[in-house]
Amino acid sequence: MVAKIVLGPNQYGKAECRLLRVTRDTERHVIEDLNVTSQLRGDFEACHTEGDNSHVVATDTQKNTVYAFARDGVGSPEDFLLRLGRHFVGEFAWVTGGRWAAEQYSWDRIADGDHSFVRTARATRTTVVEMDGDEVVVRAGLRDCTVLKSTGSEFHGFPQDRYTTLEGTTDRILATSVTASWRYAGTDLDFDGLYDDIRDLLLSTFSDVHSLALQQTIFAMGRAVLERYDDVVEISLSCPNKHHFLVDLEPFGLDNPGEVFFAADRPYGLIEATVLREEV
Amino acid sequence: MVAKIVLGPNQYGKAECRLLRVTRDTERHVIEDLNVTSQLRGDFEACHTEGDNSHVVATDTQKNTVYAFARDGVGSPEDFLLRLGRHFVGEFAWVTGGRWAAEQYSWDRIADGDHSFVRTARATRTTVVEMDGDEVVVRAGLRDCTVLKSTGSEFHGFPQDRYTTLEGTTDRILATSVTASWRYAGTDLDFDGLYDDIRDLLLSTFSDVHSLALQQTIFAMGRAVLERYDDVVEISLSCPNKHHFLVDLEPFGLDNPGEVFFAADRPYGLIEATVLREEV
Amino acid sequence: MVAKIVLGPNQYGKAECRLLRVTRDTERHVIEDLNVTSQLRGDFEACHTEGDNSHVVATDTQKNTVYAFARDGVGSPEDFLLRLGRHFVGEFAWVTGGRWAAEQYSWDRIADGDHSFVRTARATRTTVVEMDGDEVVVRAGLRDCTVLKSTGSEFHGFPQDRYTTLEGTTDRILATSVTASWRYAGTDLDFDGLYDDIRDLLLSTFSDVHSLALQQTIFAMGRAVLERYDDVVEISLSCPNKHHFLVDLEPFGLDNPGEVFFAADRPYGLIEATVLREEV
Amino acid sequence: MVAKIVLGPNQYGKAECRLLRVTRDTERHVIEDLNVTSQLRGDFEACHTEGDNSHVVATDTQKNTVYAFARDGVGSPEDFLLRLGRHFVGEFAWVTGGRWAAEQYSWDRIADGDHSFVRTARATRTTVVEMDGDEVVVRAGLRDCTVLKSTGSEFHGFPQDRYTTLEGTTDRILATSVTASWRYAGTDLDFDGLYDDIRDLLLSTFSDVHSLALQQTIFAMGRAVLERYDDVVEISLSCPNKHHFLVDLEPFGLDNPGEVFFAADRPYGLIEATVLREEV
Repeated sequence: MVAKIVLGPNQYGKAECRLLRVTRDTERHVIEDLNVTSQLRGDFEACHTEGDNSHVVATDTQKNTVYAFARDGVGSPEDFLLRLGRHFVGEFAWVTGGRWAAEQYSWDRIADGDHSFVRTARATRTTVVEMDGDEVVVRAGLRDCTVLKSTGSEFHGFPQDRYTTLEGTTDRILATSVTASWRYAGTDLDFDGLYDDIRDLLLSTFSDVHSLALQQTIFAMGRAVLERYDDVVEISLSCPNKHHFLVDLEPFGLDNPGEVFFAADRPYGLIEATVLREEV
Repeated sequence: MVAKIVLGPNQYGKAECRLLRVTRDTERHVIEDLNVTSQLRGDFEACHTEGDNSHVVATDTQKNTVYAFARDGVGSPEDFLLRLGRHFVGEFAWVTGGRWAAEQYSWDRIADGDHSFVRTARATRTTVVEMDGDEVVVRAGLRDCTVLKSTGSEFHGFPQDRYTTLEGTTDRILATSVTASWRYAGTDLDFDGLYDDIRDLLLSTFSDVHSLALQQTIFAMGRAVLERYDDVVEISLSCPNKHHFLVDLEPFGLDNPGEVFFAADRPYGLIEATVLREEV
Repeated sequence: MVAKIVLGPNQYGKAECRLLRVTRDTERHVIEDLNVTSQLRGDFEACHTEGDNSHVVATDTQKNTVYAFARDGVGSPEDFLLRLGRHFVGEFAWVTGGRWAAEQYSWDRIADGDHSFVRTARATRTTVVEMDGDEVVVRAGLRDCTVLKSTGSEFHGFPQDRYTTLEGTTDRILATSVTASWRYAGTDLDFDGLYDDIRDLLLSTFSDVHSLALQQTIFAMGRAVLERYDDVVEISLSCPNKHHFLVDLEPFGLDNPGEVFFAADRPYGLIEATVLREEV
Repeated sequence: MVAKIVLGPNQYGKAECRLLRVTRDTERHVIEDLNVTSQLRGDFEACHTEGDNSHVVATDTQKNTVYAFARDGVGSPEDFLLRLGRHFVGEFAWVTGGRWAAEQYSWDRIADGDHSFVRTARATRTTVVEMDGDEVVVRAGLRDCTVLKSTGSEFHGFPQDRYTTLEGTTDRILATSVTASWRYAGTDLDFDGLYDDIRDLLLSTFSDVHSLALQQTIFAMGRAVLERYDDVVEISLSCPNKHHFLVDLEPFGLDNPGEVFFAADRPYGLIEATVLREEV
């Protein structure tokens, strides 16, 4: 094989711009708290091969742009990232696309006050916008959403081989920290409303499904989202099985009818699946 | 100086026993989620100097005791730690005291379900019980409680020296992550009720005080607790000043009337104070 | 569009099996310290859609297999993962592939002792083996390798737009934490020797290159590996630009000729590129 | 009891000033990488009770002072903190003392280069200087120093009670992450030399002692330091017992003669002791 060594896929930018936006049009302030990453793709070969920076929109400039754009308001993280992406792709001929990502953190009002807040979260909201020429992909999601069922979970009927010691159970604790990411069909949607609804649907489906396997639960969660929201074309879930082991209290002369558990750290199960639409 | 080398203060035990207790007396389950540490003090000199373990209640035994005691229910973490401490001090003649600590994590019900939960927290609850012979000290507290005021905070009038560049301000963002720990006057209190009330009082005082300095705010928070709760004899607060810097948008032709902020990581201010009662 | 909702790509297994292997054939012990993840792919549809676990090799079984296989020795993490992968693919008809990953931690001997060690690391070694039918892909890499040049780094000549405030520099600090991952051409290689050599080559190239941009540095690092090692077909690097800002000491009547720096946390640059061979 | 509510012990300042100092007097650069915290004590009552900041040396000023002082060189972290402390106590009449702390990170040269470095650590070095009027206390220490013995450790002879299930062993793995902190007798010492020697002595003692309990090991480590270094008056050690459990391979038809271990996370033993000199 005769081959030369070349630059493959690449992107660069500024990561984790911590942005707090206060809207103080009235005495009742509103805050938006985000962590924004901007990365550009395009023709950056000369920089890699020769150190020629004439195409390199500085990562510092990307950061400045994030903060400057926030002056006009943030809105949904999806809309904010779309604005950023369109700016960079439109402004610089050699920037053909990129990846823009954000996390958003939740705050509640303290005692319904006008300008006092406490951070309270069931989940961190996530968003990724990718552009490649005219193609735009918007994904939304969440992570760090820890859920648990104290009953309504079974696991049995799995294959037995030389290395199998686990016994099946018809009643176990099921706990996981949900990471989910779904792709939207369009770019002109009510992203905030959809996020809230989908997060709640994921939670309620976790709650409602009588689980025979975490795989079954996460597929049901994904399917529920696709069934209800036509604007979602695909959803991926990654869920650790956070094991809670029943403690053997028999040496101490005690029974343990599903009441005392040891919450283990590692290892943990890791169940990952994508649910999508297939044309028929 | 003629001196010999001796053993000074020491303690040992098992740290971070992750305990989930499910109460399933009815279909509506209740869960308690704790992280328990047990450490003993007493006559352990022979172990240190000679490796003689005849006094060393194994850390594994301490862990087993935590889980076995949970079989009878947990209740408030303060009561649970008092039970543990009294057991160890009562059971082993050479154990004269110790330190027992717990963190407790909060869960909400999902859609008011009977056995489905999502972890949701404004704070991690903390408890430390220390025993030394007959003396018992119970402390409660919280950490990871992140609060923010988008106005109602000033800072000016500080001394100017050669190294001062900061300019005073009459309107800044005040944000911190509250760590607080208070000592109770007794061991027979409604610890769960007190915790909820004190946590809420800390939050509302943070919200209500027009701040001239974070020192002033945390002193006011501590004083409010002591004023309202006779059962609290002392409270310590440790609060990072999580700086939010107004971004200079002037280079981009934009003003920034307190709307766009950069949330910094390090360095951060660190303000710590104890508030207590002084007999007069 | 008429569409049905179906299961897409999926995998499951046990993550982060922390394994210490002591080889004690002689008095001079050897230790291997790994964190192993095993995930299977294949026909697991019935589990997702119906909760039928008859194909689900339990994650607990996968964990047991990791420890059981370690009884015969570990060797290079690449070889260990290949053994694991071939076992699962060979043992279960419906397992058509999977992903096996490992981290390995380094220990030095204390004072050249036979069985005493101190953990010391310039980097965490990483490995991923993926199988899909007969296709086997072996990747090796490292992460958490923090490097710094106190001179020999410039950055200028970048485009100026409305949001640009950064000034170019001909002498700055360049610091990053290298994450690299390279793909091997085969499965029968001296993986341990290659890892050590490639890690050292990445470091020395970082050191040797006079940098005009971090992009140029990481491309040079990747190219150096491909040039020297025919067994490497592709390498990806992900490198944060860990900014060190020169502190302005002028307000204090002091100059600062490149001596006193503030090491920032966030935001940080993030530069990512793949270097590969292109047939000509 | 008639009591009023008053301010108790308090301190405030700037935490985690990340400082990189490059000494470039010759082409062979030297770097010093620290994380510095400064906190003042004294008469700050008016600030707490009335929001009167006339005594409050701004935390921003403290940060500036750290960087300005670094212009003259850093040297040992102990000497640097002593300089800082003396400055604040000497400069402001109402500052009667304080607490100054630093962590220092280690870097090796890459291929013995003049200005290229890779972060490599067996431990993070720590220092705390406390001043109270004329009294000055200097402590040095380390943390994150992970050590392991693959044999030479026993644990048996401990008491048996109702909750004891652990069986004694004459050969186990002993692993811990050493946190140590020692107090020096003076302020005019070769702190860098002492640190290196004491760190090495702690490691070699861990290695040399045949352990009957982790308590015995840490007492021996502390005693060795006090025996050899008259300038050390006291040392405290805090050591988690990082359990490595022998995996039961019997279900798989395999023996396990001390070769395959599961490295557990939580819970862990936690052994803490101070060793000091007692006048006789």
